[in-house]
Amino acid sequence: MFETAELGRKLDKAEHKRAVEALRTDLLALQAQLAGADFPVIVMVNGVDGAGRGEVIHVLNEWLDTRGVDTIAFDAPTEEESHRPPYWRFWMALPRAGRMGIFTSAWYTRPVVDRAYGRIDDADLDVALAEISRFEKALVDGGALIIKLWLHVSKKVQGKRFRELRAHASTRWRVTAADLRNHKRYGVFRSVCEHVIRETSTGEAPWEVIDAADQRYRDVTVGQLIAARIRERLTAPRANHVRQPEPNIANPETILDRIDCTAKCDKAEYKKELGALQARLSHLSRRVRKRDLAVTLVFEGQDAAGKGGAIRRVTAALDARQYRVIQVAAPTDEEKAHHYLWRFWRHMPRLGRFTIYDQSWYGRVLVERVEGFASVPEWTRAYKEINDFERQVTEHGVALVKLWLHITPEEQLRRFEERQATPWKQYKITADDFRNRGKAHQYEQAANEMVGRTSTELAPWKLVAAEDKRLARLEVLRAVCDGIERAL
Amino acid sequence: MFETAELGRKLDKAEHKRAVEALRTDLLALQAQLAGADFPVIVMVNGVDGAGRGEVIHVLNEWLDTRGVDTIAFDAPTEEESHRPPYWRFWMALPRAGRMGIFTSAWYTRPVVDRAYGRIDDADLDVALAEISRFEKALVDGGALIIKLWLHVSKKVQGKRFRELRAHASTRWRVTAADLRNHKRYGVFRSVCEHVIRETSTGEAPWEVIDAADQRYRDVTVGQLIAARIRERLTAPRANHVRQPEPNIANPETILDRIDCTAKCDKAEYKKELGALQARLSHLSRRVRKRDLAVTLVFEGQDAAGKGGAIRRVTAALDARQYRVIQVAAPTDEEKAHHYLWRFWRHMPRLGRFTIYDQSWYGRVLVERVEGFASVPEWTRAYKEINDFERQVTEHGVALVKLWLHITPEEQLRRFEERQATPWKQYKITADDFRNRGKAHQYEQAANEMVGRTSTELAPWKLVAAEDKRLARLEVLRAVCDGIERAL
Repeated sequence: MFETAELGRKLDKAEHKRAVEALRTDLLALQAQLAGADFPVIVMVNGVDGAGRGEVIHVLNEWLDTRGVDTIAFDAPTEEESHRPPYWRFWMALPRAGRMGIFTSAWYTRPVVDRAYGRIDDADLDVALAEISRFEKALVDGGALIIKLWLHVSKKVQGKRFRELRAHASTRWRVTAADLRNHKRYGVFRSVCEHVIRETSTGEAPWEVIDAADQRYRDVTVGQLIAARIRERLTAPRANHVRQPEPNIANPETILDRIDCTAKCDKAEYKKELGALQARLSHLSRRVRKRDLAVTLVFEGQDAAGKGGAIRRVTAALDARQYRVIQVAAPTDEEKAHHYLWRFWRHMPRLGRFTIYDQSWYGRVLVERVEGFASVPEWTRAYKEINDFERQVTEHGVALVKLWLHITPEEQLRRFEERQATPWKQYKITADDFRNRGKAHQYEQAANEMVGRTSTELAPWKLVAAEDKRLARLEVLRAVCDGIERAL
Repeated sequence: MFETAELGRKLDKAEHKRAVEALRTDLLALQAQLAGADFPVIVMVNGVDGAGRGEVIHVLNEWLDTRGVDTIAFDAPTEEESHRPPYWRFWMALPRAGRMGIFTSAWYTRPVVDRAYGRIDDADLDVALAEISRFEKALVDGGALIIKLWLHVSKKVQGKRFRELRAHASTRWRVTAADLRNHKRYGVFRSVCEHVIRETSTGEAPWEVIDAADQRYRDVTVGQLIAARIRERLTAPRANHVRQPEPNIANPETILDRIDCTAKCDKAEYKKELGALQARLSHLSRRVRKRDLAVTLVFEGQDAAGKGGAIRRVTAALDARQYRVIQVAAPTDEEKAHHYLWRFWRHMPRLGRFTIYDQSWYGRVLVERVEGFASVPEWTRAYKEINDFERQVTEHGVALVKLWLHITPEEQLRRFEERQATPWKQYKITADDFRNRGKAHQYEQAANEMVGRTSTELAPWKLVAAEDKRLARLEVLRAVCDGIERAL
């Protein structure tokens, strides 16, 4: 595949000058349009050592309006980064809509180098590439434009370039020991890279292999490719974001109907049990800390199902330094300008801590689905995106406990009316809540499908009968303790 | 001072119920108003062990609309945190305007515990308290409302509470080994805390010492104090934010007039020198990495002084993984909802890295001053805030190099005209730029005062003659290398 990038294409000085003049004007105009667009641009600058990744980045920073561009390169993970799933640092570095991020030494570097030096085998490499493809697909589905550039030179050109640089005191420092080591392994790198490029050249995010032997040709080609892809996307926006209301589905029996809502718990028993369970949780929390396990609790359920009250019974058993409650409210504009999962990646806790979500990423397949804030393709693919996300989280050593608190429509109405009658509970209830009751079937349908599609072995849903508050709180505490014990 | 908090004030059950009913409604109404206000609320919950900090936080989370509140507690610093100045993690946790943050185990805890256990002496404690006072003053000046609550119980009450909790299996876990250790040192803690409270009870952020022996009285008092302080602030906003245009000052000679703008550098010499300096910087960058020094470069100067070009000559000598260029553009709305220094704290690099600012926090005393975006009190106190900020940064092991690139008005006009004539440079120039030339005297005045007030021993300004671009780039590289060498 690299043969076509070894044809020795060149630009002479005059051609280069003419091309650059047109290109710079073009890029700046496109960037100005991009600033108001609803998607980010991710430019990956990868390639062989000595092909000039650094020079290309330098040139792009000269040609582009740098106010709209960030250049991001990754080193070995820091301690903070190693406390999160491996992709956390990539998520955190993503540009927001309207901006461009130039990535180098990013998600491809480690698998390629590890394979070339024999630290991983072919199967490991393919696992890593599958992870990359899922990641890029989620970004593209979320609206991002990914432009992947591979700068190629032959072994001969690589060797010649290193020799030239090393010949002068003022450029010798540009060639590192790693460069020379990698030069010796050129053939191995070439075949690994060919495999990587083939496997990850997807329809959504194809690789562009660029003949980098001639610097003028290389720079102009990079610039022209970036311009072309951005122009294409600006003039033909993806149809993906159209909002479509979901057809109103008939109401068959759901898994939620099977929850027994009749059981009760008396006050004396509740008090005794509550203390015992909180003591158990408190002891477990110390083991969580010692063992560097992280715990993430997800609370979902209908309005007025008692999520807040249940959460307070959990936090009462924890040291304030060890937990954080995240109330999912309207996204800030930084959050809105990113992929919908970005804000949950952002809150990813360190190991040893508890993160408690009062509503969560499941909003995508619940309220956003039912209210039509997410389009049908958006929420249908969200199940897989969420499962991928939760897999990365649990694989990294996070105990994930997902709780659905369930009440009957009758009990919900009773609680709404009680809220209206109590001055300090009125803020919890709006006209929307009553209106949403009219959509109860759709919400139940959505919840039923959510449980079905996202109750995985790694992260099963626990359905909690919440009709009786005391019983529900005990059951929540029990499920949390059980979940942590399993993970320990 | 604690005697008045040992009077044994109580509320009986009926009084408590009545008070809580009114209080909850009141707090929620105030919170709803706060959501639209332009200031954040910081509630500090401190006090003696066993006085019920955890219970108070629990109650506040029950009374308040938790969608507008975060509870934040700090543990020992993580590796990531220890890579930044100590206050970085506190800055990062600050609530934004319209929200409330409940802080516990925050900036007071370490100095108090360290002093009580004799790990630091009185002088160290006072240094720590002075740092706290400067921090709180900056926040209050920036608009924050800080409510500091100190929960107090006598040694007798503390002992009694621990005994009661330990008497039952379901509450025994609430008393930790540290609690019992601290109980033995009650007297020492008491005198340290008294000193701390006295020293940090400033007009802007006074302490409220609360008698916490009776839980009902304690909770209601906490709630009422919070409500009163928020109401007071909502009804009597601070006059601080009024925008006042600055009087037009006569134009005496400034330090900038002394910069020699006549020297030149020919192309051949430039090329040779550039390579040599970049090689020197490249070597230094490896030592920076090894020695865990961080480098922050600040580029300021008139429009068209050549900041971007100079920065690219610096980054060309660095590994992309080791640096980040931050272009200071309009703040995002998350940034706007915080103290103006917050976004610079946010970008604080880890040790071992370079952060390069194309314009910086100095915008406060340059463009914001001249254009009247910051009021006179705002920009006048900014000099001290910036000096404090830079002191914290440099004390932490960051080599800070501040460069002012200077050109004459004639050269600026020439460059503006050249930009207008070059298609891909036109984006750099707007009608504003020409308009700002009319304010050149004021800008020069502001820059002169900035250099005078913020050229400290720890972080001096380097004034660079930028009339000749080649000369300026060499001088910038030299200053950067010298600055790093000094720090190494």
